[in-house]
Amino acid sequence: MAYTDRVKQILSWYTSDNPGTLTNLARLMNTGTLAGTGKFVILPVDQGFEHGPARSFGPNVAGYDPDYHAQLAIDSGCNAYAAPLGFLEAVAGKFAGEIPLLLKLNNSDSLAKVAAPMSAVTASVKDAVRLGCVAVGYTIYPGSSARNEQYEALREIIKEAKEYGLPTVVWAYPRGNMSKEGETGIDVVAYAAQISAQLGAHIIKVKPPQDHIEQPEAKKAFEKANIPTKTMADRVREVVRSAFNGKRIVIFSGGEAKDTPALLEEIRQINAGGGFGSIMGRNAFQRPHDESVKLLKDVMNIFAGARG
Amino acid sequence: MAYTDRVKQILSWYTSDNPGTLTNLARLMNTGTLAGTGKFVILPVDQGFEHGPARSFGPNVAGYDPDYHAQLAIDSGCNAYAAPLGFLEAVAGKFAGEIPLLLKLNNSDSLAKVAAPMSAVTASVKDAVRLGCVAVGYTIYPGSSARNEQYEALREIIKEAKEYGLPTVVWAYPRGNMSKEGETGIDVVAYAAQISAQLGAHIIKVKPPQDHIEQPEAKKAFEKANIPTKTMADRVREVVRSAFNGKRIVIFSGGEAKDTPALLEEIRQINAGGGFGSIMGRNAFQRPHDESVKLLKDVMNIFAGARG
Amino acid sequence: MAYTDRVKQILSWYTSDNPGTLTNLARLMNTGTLAGTGKFVILPVDQGFEHGPARSFGPNVAGYDPDYHAQLAIDSGCNAYAAPLGFLEAVAGKFAGEIPLLLKLNNSDSLAKVAAPMSAVTASVKDAVRLGCVAVGYTIYPGSSARNEQYEALREIIKEAKEYGLPTVVWAYPRGNMSKEGETGIDVVAYAAQISAQLGAHIIKVKPPQDHIEQPEAKKAFEKANIPTKTMADRVREVVRSAFNGKRIVIFSGGEAKDTPALLEEIRQINAGGGFGSIMGRNAFQRPHDESVKLLKDVMNIFAGARG
Amino acid sequence: MAYTDRVKQILSWYTSDNPGTLTNLARLMNTGTLAGTGKFVILPVDQGFEHGPARSFGPNVAGYDPDYHAQLAIDSGCNAYAAPLGFLEAVAGKFAGEIPLLLKLNNSDSLAKVAAPMSAVTASVKDAVRLGCVAVGYTIYPGSSARNEQYEALREIIKEAKEYGLPTVVWAYPRGNMSKEGETGIDVVAYAAQISAQLGAHIIKVKPPQDHIEQPEAKKAFEKANIPTKTMADRVREVVRSAFNGKRIVIFSGGEAKDTPALLEEIRQINAGGGFGSIMGRNAFQRPHDESVKLLKDVMNIFAGARG
Amino acid sequence: MAYTDRVKQILSWYTSDNPGTLTNLARLMNTGTLAGTGKFVILPVDQGFEHGPARSFGPNVAGYDPDYHAQLAIDSGCNAYAAPLGFLEAVAGKFAGEIPLLLKLNNSDSLAKVAAPMSAVTASVKDAVRLGCVAVGYTIYPGSSARNEQYEALREIIKEAKEYGLPTVVWAYPRGNMSKEGETGIDVVAYAAQISAQLGAHIIKVKPPQDHIEQPEAKKAFEKANIPTKTMADRVREVVRSAFNGKRIVIFSGGEAKDTPALLEEIRQINAGGGFGSIMGRNAFQRPHDESVKLLKDVMNIFAGARG
Repeated sequence: MAYTDRVKQILSWYTSDNPGTLTNLARLMNTGTLAGTGKFVILPVDQGFEHGPARSFGPNVAGYDPDYHAQLAIDSGCNAYAAPLGFLEAVAGKFAGEIPLLLKLNNSDSLAKVAAPMSAVTASVKDAVRLGCVAVGYTIYPGSSARNEQYEALREIIKEAKEYGLPTVVWAYPRGNMSKEGETGIDVVAYAAQISAQLGAHIIKVKPPQDHIEQPEAKKAFEKANIPTKTMADRVREVVRSAFNGKRIVIFSGGEAKDTPALLEEIRQINAGGGFGSIMGRNAFQRPHDESVKLLKDVMNIFAGARG
Repeated sequence: MAYTDRVKQILSWYTSDNPGTLTNLARLMNTGTLAGTGKFVILPVDQGFEHGPARSFGPNVAGYDPDYHAQLAIDSGCNAYAAPLGFLEAVAGKFAGEIPLLLKLNNSDSLAKVAAPMSAVTASVKDAVRLGCVAVGYTIYPGSSARNEQYEALREIIKEAKEYGLPTVVWAYPRGNMSKEGETGIDVVAYAAQISAQLGAHIIKVKPPQDHIEQPEAKKAFEKANIPTKTMADRVREVVRSAFNGKRIVIFSGGEAKDTPALLEEIRQINAGGGFGSIMGRNAFQRPHDESVKLLKDVMNIFAGARG
Repeated sequence: MAYTDRVKQILSWYTSDNPGTLTNLARLMNTGTLAGTGKFVILPVDQGFEHGPARSFGPNVAGYDPDYHAQLAIDSGCNAYAAPLGFLEAVAGKFAGEIPLLLKLNNSDSLAKVAAPMSAVTASVKDAVRLGCVAVGYTIYPGSSARNEQYEALREIIKEAKEYGLPTVVWAYPRGNMSKEGETGIDVVAYAAQISAQLGAHIIKVKPPQDHIEQPEAKKAFEKANIPTKTMADRVREVVRSAFNGKRIVIFSGGEAKDTPALLEEIRQINAGGGFGSIMGRNAFQRPHDESVKLLKDVMNIFAGARG
Repeated sequence: MAYTDRVKQILSWYTSDNPGTLTNLARLMNTGTLAGTGKFVILPVDQGFEHGPARSFGPNVAGYDPDYHAQLAIDSGCNAYAAPLGFLEAVAGKFAGEIPLLLKLNNSDSLAKVAAPMSAVTASVKDAVRLGCVAVGYTIYPGSSARNEQYEALREIIKEAKEYGLPTVVWAYPRGNMSKEGETGIDVVAYAAQISAQLGAHIIKVKPPQDHIEQPEAKKAFEKANIPTKTMADRVREVVRSAFNGKRIVIFSGGEAKDTPALLEEIRQINAGGGFGSIMGRNAFQRPHDESVKLLKDVMNIFAGARG
Repeated sequence: MAYTDRVKQILSWYTSDNPGTLTNLARLMNTGTLAGTGKFVILPVDQGFEHGPARSFGPNVAGYDPDYHAQLAIDSGCNAYAAPLGFLEAVAGKFAGEIPLLLKLNNSDSLAKVAAPMSAVTASVKDAVRLGCVAVGYTIYPGSSARNEQYEALREIIKEAKEYGLPTVVWAYPRGNMSKEGETGIDVVAYAAQISAQLGAHIIKVKPPQDHIEQPEAKKAFEKANIPTKTMADRVREVVRSAFNGKRIVIFSGGEAKDTPALLEEIRQINAGGGFGSIMGRNAFQRPHDESVKLLKDVMNIFAGARG
């Protein structure tokens, strides 16, 4: 499929990247229902590792099987399917090339409770290459005590991934030196997006920002500069602007489980604010197969409508 | 020996593995009394290191000698003999090829008492290659404070072992952030199996799960999804399902020392729940030689009956 | 442009450096309005990472865009533009060669609050080479508990940078075992300059020293040797002398935000004391574009006047 | 000298070792008064480092000179001379080949007092090769908090030493999680011997075990299995059995300084219990030269008598 | 210049060293006023880093300039000039070969106060090679909690330095687990010399030992062996003996600042006790140039007289 103007424009922002990395970034944008729009809907399934099998797959037991999720991403027309090593190893051979794969390189289980959040490195860039993936994912916790170690590991990963032509998706979850609301406060999420962009992320994944400003100095700055934060669209706009004035791709997770109308309304706001897409796990794969497919297609329609 | 259909089916689940690794996985399945059934009985002797010599070999002093255990595994028709480096170095030359050897790469002694469980790396993948082993073993403690370090070391080992065509057996012992009962709670054991599978384990070794649910969120999930946990067979079934819907081999340790009838009943339940086999140490080698052989053969008969 | 005598003199102090490193040091001195004078005005923009996007770019929203700053450095005739990886990656291809780039290799965000200051390594020397930079920058915190680790990392960076012909600019910010005033005390700043020079820094960046002596032993030494500290020019002179009797380039940051007359007076004092120049961020890019350009040109005029 | 049957038998237990390592193990057994008996008397002089020069060499000031000890080992017909790097570097060239050298790779001084015992690595396997040594020595502290780190370092050393054909002697000193008596308790010493053997030690050096059982579980096991611990010969027998049923060489240190008759009686017991020999430092070199030689020869006579 | 018998004798003690290392050791002994005597006077200037510029160079402001010290060492006929990287980089090209350079590889500043003394590695062996140095220097703190780390780093440095034919000078400063007087107690200084020698130091630099015995066990040993400690000459003799019976070069620092007669008397005692020389910094370069030269020449005369 020929590149659309929008895809070309997005690629033009990554002028320090090699052709291999741009090629895989383009593959993500030229796949599925949203191909060519510069918008993204990605299915991530790391909950088995993060929350345990029964909590993740009990609601829809078909999900115990790794094949199920790859097929769901294909059936619903997602841009990509993201998972930890084991799940991808189980499907990579079988679905080779049918759906772009994104290997999550680090993950955190919830059997242990530790003060400072820190994911285990559960796969390598070379694993992603071996399994035919088009991108790698890495989680950082800005604000946490081990953040520097995480930033440095991320830099190494981005560097190595580029050597193999793989773009890097950064999961940026603020934590640590802040209130619970602060973790999704508009100033904090925007700051996390800026940090991710400065570290060289190709795609930045954040939670939908809330109407809360955590840092007193940021509060002053928002007020002085009259930055609106009332609606989700306002806040998404500020987060996207904080990622190099919108020149880095920012996508949003589904947030708390909610009913379908609320979820779709949030998607509309994200789209209105210039968000580049959604990454939606539990809200998708925990429903029966056909419901999941319908929901994901509804989400895609909203994003497609924005530029269609 | 030609592969049975069951062996072929099991191998088909590991489609991201290279032929060398599949070959050694097949060797394990094509050895001993259970050859071709896809079931496993393995003799592990790491107690000299883990509990000290007198506690381990005092009950049957023949066991002070490393030759004894390799011969016992051969005499009883086990799929493999597993031990730390020293014991394998002492027998590898003498019994070369008579019995598949599994080198345990890390071990923990009980002279020191430390808060966070952490095994010492006592051998390397290259040692396993040098000694002609068909697989390596590695212990992780999901839930413990050093778990991430252990997961990351395991990932490196699995990667290196594959380069030499060796599958990896993961000993998954939950510890740390949980009650004593929680360590064998069904939710915890199932979660440990899921983590091991996501990390790329070829064979997962867990303790028989008990009818206890440790994590409140897991309790809700089990109830909502109506997952039965009453019988050992029920619980084994859930653990096996948690290892990629049964597409990863899960074997069970003997658990607490118990009398022979109770032990055999437990084996029957494990088999009924779809468990792939047993790994049985003290219950075997601490009895007189002929009793050990008889017990192991009885266990094999149960597993063989399941598909015979 | 032919080297002036002053440029030749400065280069003569770095006799252990290879021609490649001297070449890039000369490039910095032969660029912009101050070309040939041996004086420096550099535009650094690391505040997005260090203080967050709204606090940094809210006052002049054009600054959210990475292109803006590179263009500002060009428009105002700076010797160089300094920034973290993300910002340089966004402009390196577009402005290739129009303005010397200085890659800041480590940075510290203000989402987390930690006792011991420690920047994350956010880019490598090889990144600087790949992006066509003429120098690298690295921050140390003399006096802090992790200083040794920082000094050792700096040594590795200087060594590697030289292999690629890149000089190293050291940001020396005393911290830790001292009072708040001590951080900019004349004895402490002079000591930090000496440490940086002993570690092999080509250019040393410090804050304008204040009329405060932190260490009792230093107080005695200053008094005994009659070292004047009353005026900024006095103090700048002592700091420059502490950098190998003025044989290492020392430049000064803008210090606290202040009004333009006060700022220009400080520049006059720095110049009078033999300072080699200024590195000025927020005072520059947070004003409207034309005001920034005018301010930077006024600063350059002061430094140019000194030898013009 | 042709190998005796006993030497051949001992070598036959190390079937996983390469010929180079067996050659040097044989060299140790074919040197000095005890050549061919499979018994060992080794002179170790690490006390200068471990206790300081005056405490070590004050009683016999000839010992300040490194030449003295190498000559003493030759004069008395020892199997080998063991010392830290500096002492061996001082004599290796002068006495090249006259006496087998054993390089102690780690040592601990007593200027600092630290909770967890940990020796410094003071030499490398390559140093041993460079100096013409026939073996390397390494100290571990089973039971101490840093034991795992020590076991892992030992594994690396054994592996590297084998690559150069050098066997490894392990000094196993239990410490940490035990009473003072426990450090030489029969259960603890036997456990330490087992751990050393499992880690791949070729020769294991322990202190003479005392009639004390430290661990409650071990006490039960000793009682149940009727393992005698009354005489030193009994206890030595259990320690030797714990080293792979006597298939690994176990030698014993001189223990506390004592008078000559008591010392020789202890040697007789060690010999009666099947111990492979002694490693005797202060009891030897702190006496006048001729007394030392006589004592060492008396000790050798006891060991020689056992099989002579 | 042909080697004197004394130089040949000293070189004969280092029989495990390669010709390159012996060549540079000889260069040190064949330079300056003391050439051929086997005695040493070395000028070290690391105080700018260790104590700060004003405290170090305020008393004689010519010393702010790195050229000054190299010239002073030449003017006074020293065997060598020792300094950190920055100072040597500033002079190495200009004075190439005029004076042997000794690069201090680690240094400690006094801006930070930390419990456990630990120097930062501020230069590498390869830096010494690049700058044409004839030796490297490294500081250890025997008795401190980080001593093992320091010993191990020293071992690596000695090994690497030998590969380039560079001898290593060890600055041995006892610290930590001792009283303030203990740091220069005769038992402690002698022990530090022994440790340094065992670690492979070619030249050992200690402080002049005082008439104080720190360790109770050492006190007993000194008394039992009747080791005299009354005069500085006595104590120097014991320290030299503790360095392999005088077969390793031991030199002494100037100690506390004192008046010239007291200083020269101390040198006489050091010489009388068999000390190999002095390393004198502040006592030299903080005086006016001609006074420094005279003092250093007086010191050399004392050492020369000993064997002249």
